[in-house]
Amino acid sequence: MSKEITPRSENYSQWYNDIVRKAELAENSAVRGCMVIKPYGYAIWEKIQAQLDKMFKETGHENAYFPLFIPKSFLSKEAAHVEGFAKECAVVTHYRLKNDPDGNGIVVDPDAKLEEELIVRPTSETIIWSTYKNWIQSYRDLPILCNQWANVVRWEMRTRLFLRTTEFLWQEGHTAHATEAEAVEETHKMIDVYAEFAKEWMAMPVIQGHKTENERFAGAIDTLCIEALMQDGKALQAGTSHFLGQNFAKAFDVKFTDKDGKLNYVWASSWGVSTRLMGALIMTHSDDKGFVLPPKLAPIHVVIVPIYKTPEQYETICAKANEIAKRLRVLNITVKVDDRDTQKPGWKFAEYEMKGVPVRLALGSRDIENGTVEVARRDTLTKETIEMESLEAYITNLLEEIQTNLYKKAIDFRNENTYTCDTWNEFQDILENKGGFVYAHWDGTAETEAAIKDKLKVTIRCIPFNNKQEDGVCILSGKPSKQRVLFAKAY
Amino acid sequence: MSKEITPRSENYSQWYNDIVRKAELAENSAVRGCMVIKPYGYAIWEKIQAQLDKMFKETGHENAYFPLFIPKSFLSKEAAHVEGFAKECAVVTHYRLKNDPDGNGIVVDPDAKLEEELIVRPTSETIIWSTYKNWIQSYRDLPILCNQWANVVRWEMRTRLFLRTTEFLWQEGHTAHATEAEAVEETHKMIDVYAEFAKEWMAMPVIQGHKTENERFAGAIDTLCIEALMQDGKALQAGTSHFLGQNFAKAFDVKFTDKDGKLNYVWASSWGVSTRLMGALIMTHSDDKGFVLPPKLAPIHVVIVPIYKTPEQYETICAKANEIAKRLRVLNITVKVDDRDTQKPGWKFAEYEMKGVPVRLALGSRDIENGTVEVARRDTLTKETIEMESLEAYITNLLEEIQTNLYKKAIDFRNENTYTCDTWNEFQDILENKGGFVYAHWDGTAETEAAIKDKLKVTIRCIPFNNKQEDGVCILSGKPSKQRVLFAKAY
Repeated sequence: MSKEITPRSENYSQWYNDIVRKAELAENSAVRGCMVIKPYGYAIWEKIQAQLDKMFKETGHENAYFPLFIPKSFLSKEAAHVEGFAKECAVVTHYRLKNDPDGNGIVVDPDAKLEEELIVRPTSETIIWSTYKNWIQSYRDLPILCNQWANVVRWEMRTRLFLRTTEFLWQEGHTAHATEAEAVEETHKMIDVYAEFAKEWMAMPVIQGHKTENERFAGAIDTLCIEALMQDGKALQAGTSHFLGQNFAKAFDVKFTDKDGKLNYVWASSWGVSTRLMGALIMTHSDDKGFVLPPKLAPIHVVIVPIYKTPEQYETICAKANEIAKRLRVLNITVKVDDRDTQKPGWKFAEYEMKGVPVRLALGSRDIENGTVEVARRDTLTKETIEMESLEAYITNLLEEIQTNLYKKAIDFRNENTYTCDTWNEFQDILENKGGFVYAHWDGTAETEAAIKDKLKVTIRCIPFNNKQEDGVCILSGKPSKQRVLFAKAY
Repeated sequence: MSKEITPRSENYSQWYNDIVRKAELAENSAVRGCMVIKPYGYAIWEKIQAQLDKMFKETGHENAYFPLFIPKSFLSKEAAHVEGFAKECAVVTHYRLKNDPDGNGIVVDPDAKLEEELIVRPTSETIIWSTYKNWIQSYRDLPILCNQWANVVRWEMRTRLFLRTTEFLWQEGHTAHATEAEAVEETHKMIDVYAEFAKEWMAMPVIQGHKTENERFAGAIDTLCIEALMQDGKALQAGTSHFLGQNFAKAFDVKFTDKDGKLNYVWASSWGVSTRLMGALIMTHSDDKGFVLPPKLAPIHVVIVPIYKTPEQYETICAKANEIAKRLRVLNITVKVDDRDTQKPGWKFAEYEMKGVPVRLALGSRDIENGTVEVARRDTLTKETIEMESLEAYITNLLEEIQTNLYKKAIDFRNENTYTCDTWNEFQDILENKGGFVYAHWDGTAETEAAIKDKLKVTIRCIPFNNKQEDGVCILSGKPSKQRVLFAKAY
């Protein structure tokens, strides 16, 4: 397989697909809209999972597991929720196949029709709140702070690997609280966890804020989000945290006795991130050579490629490479020695550039004589020759520097592509021709929001936290506005 | 909730259900046959997962993820497989719901019927081998050593928490090899991994062996298994590893070019364990006080319960308890200090006995004066007073001793309940009245195997590895036999 990919400037969408395919992250499956996550892609997802899981546990959450299926009637119990989720979903209607009596292979057994259809979970609020009803009697049973790692299914018409697939992997937190204040605090705490993860681990800057009513989760009182800017100037919603009020408690009749002996409905939050983060990761850092991975999420930190001509050289250099690998592994650096003699060094260089391995060491005979090694950085594509002796300190620092540099590059890119607009013409020009984040005044009505979306396919990504209050006029309607909100085209 | 449970002697099945419920491991959900795994139960499953995942990676495997859905036609491609798995399964026929025009809530949209029905995976050989077809061209692409952690669905008619549920969690390894010998070696390697895990982590002795043709996985040439003996004298199949020959490669046309340039079908293995291991764990060690957990799989190793009368005592004792906890945590011992003042010590003792926490420390004022602490073991229900000073060493040893003792108890139990029978009357008497493992001669025919199953509901659990070869006569037919096989009633 050629290691060349379509440049971003030529066809951004094809560039993305090329990276996903050639870095061996994922591929389409035989089932429409469902992806296969390949081992290298899944190894990155495991790193994402492990760190988030740690952060969830550090903030007091426990994991649990709830059923894949939701009885159809459950979806109808929360009025707004049914509108949002009971549309495009996988419906199980039968529980048996049989041999076709006419000899046409296997067919659905019509006698095995379910009394009530089951929906493959698109999200689990309903099945979880029907369960919480049995777990909650008194204030002593609260809070409940559960998370679940699971697969979910939403029957998307247009799918793209990682960004929008029919089945995807995610985590969904579902918490139950005695007071509104606690549930709101939890909602904020978890969007902060996501923002910290995006920044510190994905090296991806995000804007935190509230969704408009229009863009809220179906059944939420408030939806908080993190929004990242991709290299094509489009926004990607990377995580959401919902304050659900008492909506699901009322739908499933979940009450508790408070300290004064009074019965109250329970307050709720839910929050989630998904394999979509993989798409965000790819589009934040990668270049025309392939995937670029922040070291903290890289399955391989350092690859060592031996450069040799003779079998004797091969022996000596591989021995040295393994010695270096050992020295680095002690420091929790993951090292791969690629000693395959079926591929040339140049081919290997391209391979690991494509896969985004942060650091590449090339080791030849002269290096061994001189006590040096050539170190190449994936982020800047620069090389340096380093004294072998000081390698541990150098690589440790370098990995930190790459992590920091990727964040800095991403934030610089965002700054360069963030605008403040006061006229419709400018607003339209930027969003149609350049893309990016645009802060502009909005009159606060759903009508104006819808009209802007109609005209430019641009949405309000969020009303940022601690948003500066200033008088202005709406970019479209000219009506008075108290604050600017964040507009962008979005994935 | 009362902490009393039904004694084993009175009603074994109720005893099991009581433990699952009162130790808060799992419960039935609103969806028939699907369970909710509660946080405490899930924490144990996470420990099982973490260790197995480590062992899989140490043996060269990588994780990946394949679709939840399988096109109906895929199931028919392997003749034996379709017979085994295309029966009781969840069938997705539609992809949309809509509001009922007659106002009866939401209904399945008849216009959104799938052209080909999708089956919720009961196991993933078919979808994975349809994927491997694209991954494998040459011997250089082999072996493929993939594992997946996933949920699967089999529409079981009679379900029991953990032991047999419609949806369950598992891992399934699917490997592809260039030669028959390699695939057979892999099949054996993985059943050895399972046996080691069962012994070292679950403290559960198992017999390894081959399934008879009758009991093989649908599509396998050979099925290896580990079989454990439960306290009611019934066997539980705790893991299987299948040599699949070239059956799936042929069904999905997966060929590779070998070193000589010749095209060959690929050889395969698959292997899995599931949340059923939770049921095995419960039934191997627990007693009439509740769950008993081997320390290596316990989410909490040590619980400290303060014993106090006055608020001053409470302060002093809790401070000391936290100090002890800190000392133990340094040694990677998980400690919970239960300082709730809403529950009495006796209630807490019963609670942690029910949950199987291996070690309980009780700490009172006199202990603090004397520099001692009371240590109670969950496995033997014995108590000792220990010098506070030597606590680290004592607890470290004790946890190891409990792990060892549980295995010893389990193997003693198995030895006491393992029989060698030569007459049908004795065979029948043991299996109908006592239960246990019975080694007896079998003539090797499927007819005799079926006749024994018919008469006594007893199955051949396995033909043990390295089975002693000896001449004898079949326990039922009286025909000549070369070896004894392992019989038992089974879950």
